[in-house]
Amino acid sequence: MARYRLTLAYDGTDFLGWQRQADGAGRTVQGELEAALARLSGGAPVSVAGAGRTDAGVHALGQVASFDLRREVAPTELQRALNGLLPEDVRVLAAAAAPEGFHARRDALSKLYRYELQCGGVLLPQRRRQAGWVPWTLDPARVAAAAALYVGRHDFASLASSGGSVRTTTRTVARSEARFDGEILVYETEGDGFLRKMVRSMVGGLVAAGRGAASVDDLARALAARDRRAWPPPAEARGLTLVSVAYPAPASAVLR
Amino acid sequence: MARYRLTLAYDGTDFLGWQRQADGAGRTVQGELEAALARLSGGAPVSVAGAGRTDAGVHALGQVASFDLRREVAPTELQRALNGLLPEDVRVLAAAAAPEGFHARRDALSKLYRYELQCGGVLLPQRRRQAGWVPWTLDPARVAAAAALYVGRHDFASLASSGGSVRTTTRTVARSEARFDGEILVYETEGDGFLRKMVRSMVGGLVAAGRGAASVDDLARALAARDRRAWPPPAEARGLTLVSVAYPAPASAVLR
Repeated sequence: MARYRLTLAYDGTDFLGWQRQADGAGRTVQGELEAALARLSGGAPVSVAGAGRTDAGVHALGQVASFDLRREVAPTELQRALNGLLPEDVRVLAAAAAPEGFHARRDALSKLYRYELQCGGVLLPQRRRQAGWVPWTLDPARVAAAAALYVGRHDFASLASSGGSVRTTTRTVARSEARFDGEILVYETEGDGFLRKMVRSMVGGLVAAGRGAASVDDLARALAARDRRAWPPPAEARGLTLVSVAYPAPASAVLR
Repeated sequence: MARYRLTLAYDGTDFLGWQRQADGAGRTVQGELEAALARLSGGAPVSVAGAGRTDAGVHALGQVASFDLRREVAPTELQRALNGLLPEDVRVLAAAAAPEGFHARRDALSKLYRYELQCGGVLLPQRRRQAGWVPWTLDPARVAAAAALYVGRHDFASLASSGGSVRTTTRTVARSEARFDGEILVYETEGDGFLRKMVRSMVGGLVAAGRGAASVDDLARALAARDRRAWPPPAEARGLTLVSVAYPAPASAVLR
């Protein structure tokens, strides 16, 4: 057995998300990737782990996946073969041999997400698959103040969708920064992990603060309430992209 | 009657092009726009002229359209109402009252087109609807030399697709510039008019020169031949965008 690691980009618009559905129905990134790997393995099933289980409509520029193959393949050949088999809305940006036991999700130290939101005005058709839209102009200072609220270690239960089966809803957010490119809010956040719909809920909070529907104090109270009914609605899935995943330096690098 | 002018953006991926089909079948930008305008006019048909008849799969950031309405409408209201009726892959970026007799195509002085081409490497899924792809790395100096060939007044018959019914195949290209953004070739050309598939053929020439399949002298001879069989194949439609259309300064501005 040989373990591999892939860096993937995808346009999540036409996927039900990363994770293969229990009944195998519906188009998922994991499903497409496992089907392509099974073809490369002569039909033998291959089970793939993804760093982040992105939801339906969420994109990636640097999703990381790990899996075992029965026989060794040159990584450049693996990339070329997979890109030949995969649909055009998923691409392998890089392939590498990985140490035995490497697991894309469990070994991840942190993830960086980006959200793009057109605030008022007209969302360009060319951007509509990768950006959300709200009818309001947002106040940059209030958005920045709300973004600062997320930094640090908090119980984010108010920002998680139900239906997840996580042991704890406490997460550490290392970075939470909003900037405006004209009418487009570009929000980036990096943390050790994000609950289901958490980043979209973070953006929902920025919108509520930025348009004046909630004060930053209101948001602080809603966060402390650990009750998702207290939190503003999440932003649309289409604006969200998993940009990159960070891992510990490989052992070989440490040993050098 | 009151005449209007719209600036439109669209993602051409899911359109058969600008022009309404003779049998009315198939999704076109003109067709969607005329249907929305007819709804605003209480069912009265509205005939729309577009500055450029973009082909299937070709996009716009600044297409211009003109038409008459029976009653006057505030332009901001017209924009808002149309964006409420149009599908999300066409947006009205601006609306304005236009002088009687203004015609988006006949009055156009020049058009600016942009082509984006991923050269080798992997085309990001997020860019795949707005960029073409070729497997080759192109030589920037050879691409620049080929781009310079198009500037000026030439008979571009070699670069036109058949099936057009134009009186002359002579056009003047004012600007023809290629630059590289990493592996992506960004080509812009401005001229008084472009024949059917002409910009895509221009890019096809850049690719042939850049990968070494043709010398710039070969291209010059193929241009002079006025025979489309002599020219390299056109680039894919999806990389092409009509960026803007220029018009004479309005009479009112001239009179001031």
